[in-house]
Amino acid sequence: MLRLSLHRITLPRPTTLFNFPTLHTKLRPQTMAASYTTRSSSHPRSNKLLFRQLFEKESSTYTYLLADLSHPDKPALLIDPVDKMVERDLSLVKELGLKLIYAMNTHVHADHVTGSGLIKNKIPGVKSIISKASNSQADLLIKAGDKICFGDLFLEVRATPGHTLGCVTYVTGDGPDQPQPRMAFTGDALLIRGCGRTDFQGGSSLQLYKSVHSQIFTLPKDTLLFPAHDYKGFTVSTVEEEMLYNPRLTKEEEAFKNIMENLKLPYPKMIDIAVPANMVCGLQDVSAKPVEATSN
Amino acid sequence: MLRLSLHRITLPRPTTLFNFPTLHTKLRPQTMAASYTTRSSSHPRSNKLLFRQLFEKESSTYTYLLADLSHPDKPALLIDPVDKMVERDLSLVKELGLKLIYAMNTHVHADHVTGSGLIKNKIPGVKSIISKASNSQADLLIKAGDKICFGDLFLEVRATPGHTLGCVTYVTGDGPDQPQPRMAFTGDALLIRGCGRTDFQGGSSLQLYKSVHSQIFTLPKDTLLFPAHDYKGFTVSTVEEEMLYNPRLTKEEEAFKNIMENLKLPYPKMIDIAVPANMVCGLQDVSAKPVEATSN
Repeated sequence: MLRLSLHRITLPRPTTLFNFPTLHTKLRPQTMAASYTTRSSSHPRSNKLLFRQLFEKESSTYTYLLADLSHPDKPALLIDPVDKMVERDLSLVKELGLKLIYAMNTHVHADHVTGSGLIKNKIPGVKSIISKASNSQADLLIKAGDKICFGDLFLEVRATPGHTLGCVTYVTGDGPDQPQPRMAFTGDALLIRGCGRTDFQGGSSLQLYKSVHSQIFTLPKDTLLFPAHDYKGFTVSTVEEEMLYNPRLTKEEEAFKNIMENLKLPYPKMIDIAVPANMVCGLQDVSAKPVEATSN
Repeated sequence: MLRLSLHRITLPRPTTLFNFPTLHTKLRPQTMAASYTTRSSSHPRSNKLLFRQLFEKESSTYTYLLADLSHPDKPALLIDPVDKMVERDLSLVKELGLKLIYAMNTHVHADHVTGSGLIKNKIPGVKSIISKASNSQADLLIKAGDKICFGDLFLEVRATPGHTLGCVTYVTGDGPDQPQPRMAFTGDALLIRGCGRTDFQGGSSLQLYKSVHSQIFTLPKDTLLFPAHDYKGFTVSTVEEEMLYNPRLTKEEEAFKNIMENLKLPYPKMIDIAVPANMVCGLQDVSAKPVEATSN
């Protein structure tokens, strides 16, 4: 029988303890969950990584701040910053004593304007990053297989098109000094118990299905998934959870295609403003000289 | 010089690498942050703890799900559940294969209705918890020094009145098998770069000041702070951060009192509905027989 107890201690050290009787020994409602096995802490263990998840309420966008605290400069990057939250983000970067080096996007967002251009203007030297496949301007245009280093930590780039042609997923490195479990910043390719729509910006439901199954569901099951958005207040999921419970991506390919073709979603209200802006780091007049990450 | 590089690899293993030149060697704007020293990963490291932060947008409330994954029953608790999000929360509990045993509140909320009563109705056996000082009904009425166990993990109760008379902070245990860094669920006593108002429900600015300084700021500096709300999209802070950057609680006691007395906040729009409901687990007809955690 499960031992449930409420103990009385005298802080700061426990002294005397007592138990309350349990009243609910019959409770085992989780039949579905029998196959859920991951012993994940839901958060990465690392002595080096500083990690912060930040939220913008209007578009329900998550921005992620990562930094290597073991490096003397504490180099940091922001994934999917939002224009109206730049002041908050840079204030936090400053308070934490970080040196911001990259402002990255997972894709050309249609629902909010990126903060990458504003950040570049406020902190000279910060480089903006987006995929070459997005056909957008940024300082660094990345492709699948690229490795984005900050201190001794790094993110790998995986191409996950389908929501847009240029979507990528950034995944923390695979190595003894990298965060464990691994973390994947999936943009709109994979949302918690959902996925991004596929009816604009070169979207394709079959391409999205292939992207998620080949590039995300092949990661270790305990990989922590951090999406670009959540509309229900979830903050994190895992590969295992989405492989078991994602109501769309657990379906067969054809069923998934049917779901995506019948979502009947309204026209994205911000798309005509956000997409052109986000193709130039959120600023029409951004002065970025693109550097393509050519292979060697 | 900081080595910043964007690398090209062939997944799944790196093969060839190259560097981009760095252009921002002069960037060091963080003069304030020189005293910020914690090498915190911003998230607890534990092989046992499952931890999820959940958000309710309307009242900007955070609900926290904690469970001991090392225990065969995976016993779990929810801190500050919101009535309208109970379905989401219990669905997640079920999918993760957890056995919910406690639905806890940090205090009698004035801005939303707790989900603890609904949860008790939906999962018989779950016990609601609130402080005895709140003068509310719940299955277990806790006091400073109580220890709330779930599997081999536990939370300590610290009394942190000031926002309300009955506010408590739940702090993860101090021990080798408990999460590191420690985590404190501060309710409205300490918010990220802020604190709860002190003009209702037996609030007292001087009492809040003393609570935070004696019960929260005395925790290890890398203790992760998880508040009941955030209105700017922050998800976590640390004791060290708030001791350095909290714009109210870094002030002297008298200055803090002056700030709190001149906030000129509007009357809380939900207070007349939420407070009476929350004194009975969010349900007017909750059938809870209180068990007081008497000392022995």
